[in-house]
Amino acid sequence: MKRYERLADDIAGLIRNGILTPGEKIPSVRHASKTYGVSPSTVFQAYYLLEDRGLIQARARSGYFVRALAGLPTPEPRSDLSTQETTDVGVSELVFSVLGSLKNPHTMPFGSAFPSPDLFPLARLARSMTHSLRTLSPHDIIADMTAGNPDLMRQIALRYMVSGVMLPMEELVVTNGALEALNLSLQSVTQAGDLVAIESPAFYACLQVLERLELKAVEIPVHPRDGVDLKILRERLASLPIKACWFMSSFQNPVGASLNESRKQELYSLLCEHQVPLIEDDVYAELYYGERPPKPIKTLDTQGLVMHCSSFSKSLAPGYRVGWVAGGRFAERIARLKLMTTISPSVPAQTAIADYLQHGNYDRHLRKLRYALESQQDAMLASAARHFPAGTRVTRPAGGYFLWFEFPDNVDSLQLFKLALAQGISLAPGPIFSASQGFRHCARLNYGHSWGAESEQAMALLGRMLRSF
Amino acid sequence: MKRYERLADDIAGLIRNGILTPGEKIPSVRHASKTYGVSPSTVFQAYYLLEDRGLIQARARSGYFVRALAGLPTPEPRSDLSTQETTDVGVSELVFSVLGSLKNPHTMPFGSAFPSPDLFPLARLARSMTHSLRTLSPHDIIADMTAGNPDLMRQIALRYMVSGVMLPMEELVVTNGALEALNLSLQSVTQAGDLVAIESPAFYACLQVLERLELKAVEIPVHPRDGVDLKILRERLASLPIKACWFMSSFQNPVGASLNESRKQELYSLLCEHQVPLIEDDVYAELYYGERPPKPIKTLDTQGLVMHCSSFSKSLAPGYRVGWVAGGRFAERIARLKLMTTISPSVPAQTAIADYLQHGNYDRHLRKLRYALESQQDAMLASAARHFPAGTRVTRPAGGYFLWFEFPDNVDSLQLFKLALAQGISLAPGPIFSASQGFRHCARLNYGHSWGAESEQAMALLGRMLRSF
Repeated sequence: MKRYERLADDIAGLIRNGILTPGEKIPSVRHASKTYGVSPSTVFQAYYLLEDRGLIQARARSGYFVRALAGLPTPEPRSDLSTQETTDVGVSELVFSVLGSLKNPHTMPFGSAFPSPDLFPLARLARSMTHSLRTLSPHDIIADMTAGNPDLMRQIALRYMVSGVMLPMEELVVTNGALEALNLSLQSVTQAGDLVAIESPAFYACLQVLERLELKAVEIPVHPRDGVDLKILRERLASLPIKACWFMSSFQNPVGASLNESRKQELYSLLCEHQVPLIEDDVYAELYYGERPPKPIKTLDTQGLVMHCSSFSKSLAPGYRVGWVAGGRFAERIARLKLMTTISPSVPAQTAIADYLQHGNYDRHLRKLRYALESQQDAMLASAARHFPAGTRVTRPAGGYFLWFEFPDNVDSLQLFKLALAQGISLAPGPIFSASQGFRHCARLNYGHSWGAESEQAMALLGRMLRSF
Repeated sequence: MKRYERLADDIAGLIRNGILTPGEKIPSVRHASKTYGVSPSTVFQAYYLLEDRGLIQARARSGYFVRALAGLPTPEPRSDLSTQETTDVGVSELVFSVLGSLKNPHTMPFGSAFPSPDLFPLARLARSMTHSLRTLSPHDIIADMTAGNPDLMRQIALRYMVSGVMLPMEELVVTNGALEALNLSLQSVTQAGDLVAIESPAFYACLQVLERLELKAVEIPVHPRDGVDLKILRERLASLPIKACWFMSSFQNPVGASLNESRKQELYSLLCEHQVPLIEDDVYAELYYGERPPKPIKTLDTQGLVMHCSSFSKSLAPGYRVGWVAGGRFAERIARLKLMTTISPSVPAQTAIADYLQHGNYDRHLRKLRYALESQQDAMLASAARHFPAGTRVTRPAGGYFLWFEFPDNVDSLQLFKLALAQGISLAPGPIFSASQGFRHCARLNYGHSWGAESEQAMALLGRMLRSF
């Protein structure tokens, strides 16, 4: 154990034992450096680690604080323990029945895949739409349709530059949301019958896409905090003809795990060694709660092996359906697949977002959005601690808007899903996130909606149902 | 030969011999009925036939006139004579090299797939966008995204009702343009390796989609005026396990042919007999030059076998990327495939079009658009007659914005494409419309842009190139 890890553990102990209480400011770096007799950089590293673990949080210009819920005893869920090597995927029916249940607007949307649309600057975006349509020439419409709107692409490339990726414009393909980017990326490197390494649990659309394309899943367990299990991935890559990996490196859906930088480096080396392309689903990249954005694996991609997929749907413009992929060496193939499939995302949606990114103060909106989501996480965690039975485990992601609950073994989340829905509460039951339909006592809950008395009542009701098993 | 056909041939003779001259009004139905001693309904039938053949045209409330170019001697092209039964498709590379050539905005866009964006009410649409975004509630954005915008779907269903189809809302799936509708429809009824009957020549994206999905083409020749050859289709359906047909019933791309109503009925009976679904690509439906819209095969679809695909891209809102499919018995499967692929077309684009359809006077715009396209067809036909060599054949479609030329046998259209492009003129060479890369002495020319001195010069230049072979 390194010195900073030991220091982090010491402080974590103070938090768990209630010596440092939720909301309390922890010692400044200078102060801690003197107190513990270590260098300021060791203190910094320890604090980053604690922040990663969701125990403390930085507030701009005021230092580090113990997170409101850091002291709660709810432990984190366990990793997937299944040992199956490959799986035929057949989860779609189940997913559609869950999605169908979300249509009722009076349902408490814990099962939703989207954060509340109230969190987004829709009126400001509408002004950008009006402005950009006024200046768009008819002939640009046709040009933008095949190649993508150049202003939008420049703004996306600029954001990559800030995060350390110099992206040639030819690598960028603008798509109908991230889902099309992911679909086309996968199609660009696989054929029916191929093996694809995915996470377990995984984003259900990933499972559906594999099913539709007749691909086989190689499920790699995801640790609730550290992310995908690299030891098992290494074994599978060595023993199976895996054609692609599809992973979320940050705030993984559903568990919220992120790979740290050294694990990202290790994963990238593995990919290079086997020359296996990575489809990096990074749709929650902007929803980090820490001081600095997580670095995508794309930042390491010297060989063009990474297809980095994201969108504006979760961070700015829900329903506009504008996403993209930085496609590495597969970009041209992806662009061509897009021309055969949908041609282009809506041009007005592209120009409106481009105008907003230039003039709308995106970064201020993102700061507010992150703060709202983080506070709502605290609220849901506190509520779960009050209402859910002993033996419940939960993740504490450092970004996004999902909590992943592991309930006591006697809970059947499909049964819970039905019971809850009858009471007007939706949730996303564990089996929809698994090709092998595991995770029967797990569920994903969405905290992307403002917290209020009704949310609290719904959690209390869920708690009573959980106890009834 | 029936009485009305004989009468039509007589009048056609008068036109060809220059007795009735271009632009001249032909006798009223009452007058002709007396003169020829036949019933008014026989005269009507004869006039509809002449209109179908592009020899005369109706003008609202003023009667029938000889079409400006009806007297030209250029004959129509011949049908495909190939006898191959099934074909592996591999045309994508060629298509992309042609499409890539269109990017230069200074090129004369005879090779383009789009009509000029100047023909569309873009400013009025932008006002509809501003207005609809002002009234759209944030929560509708999420609801519209999964199910489609209800106002838009109602407007689409209304237009179906007017054309004689009572469409249950559940049958309608809103998509990212017609191309996504076609893709998903095809996927909903086929698996890799299946046979699909398509037209020869066919829309090149149809060939690309077959190639991508690893389907095999059964090419059915298209007569330049009457449409797909039903005799050959009947034979193929009887002898081959065809899983789906993909046809354009009106203004077929590239040749412009339309099936008349009795041939549509015959085709539908064939489909029912073999229980083979039809993907009906009807994107030019609104661009008819006659008095009445052509009836899609969907109007006959009592069994839910027809997936009728269209969009607003060619008639109202280029670049908005909003299309749909009336999916018959396959609608639910198509809707699910869409949720796995792109989720939804852009919600603002949907609401803007819905607002325009309600308040924008769509029908007035369409009348102007049809008139512009028809006049431009006359201009291109006249120009071709002036400049292209003897032995050139050409279609005279009763709608859309493409002419299909068959040049003398010594012309190589791929060679012509290269020569023309070097002079700043694009065109769509015949082989991109054929799985077997036939039609080497054919080309599709787009007349969807306003005609002027530059267009005339480009045609003259093409004429000189054609003579050089």
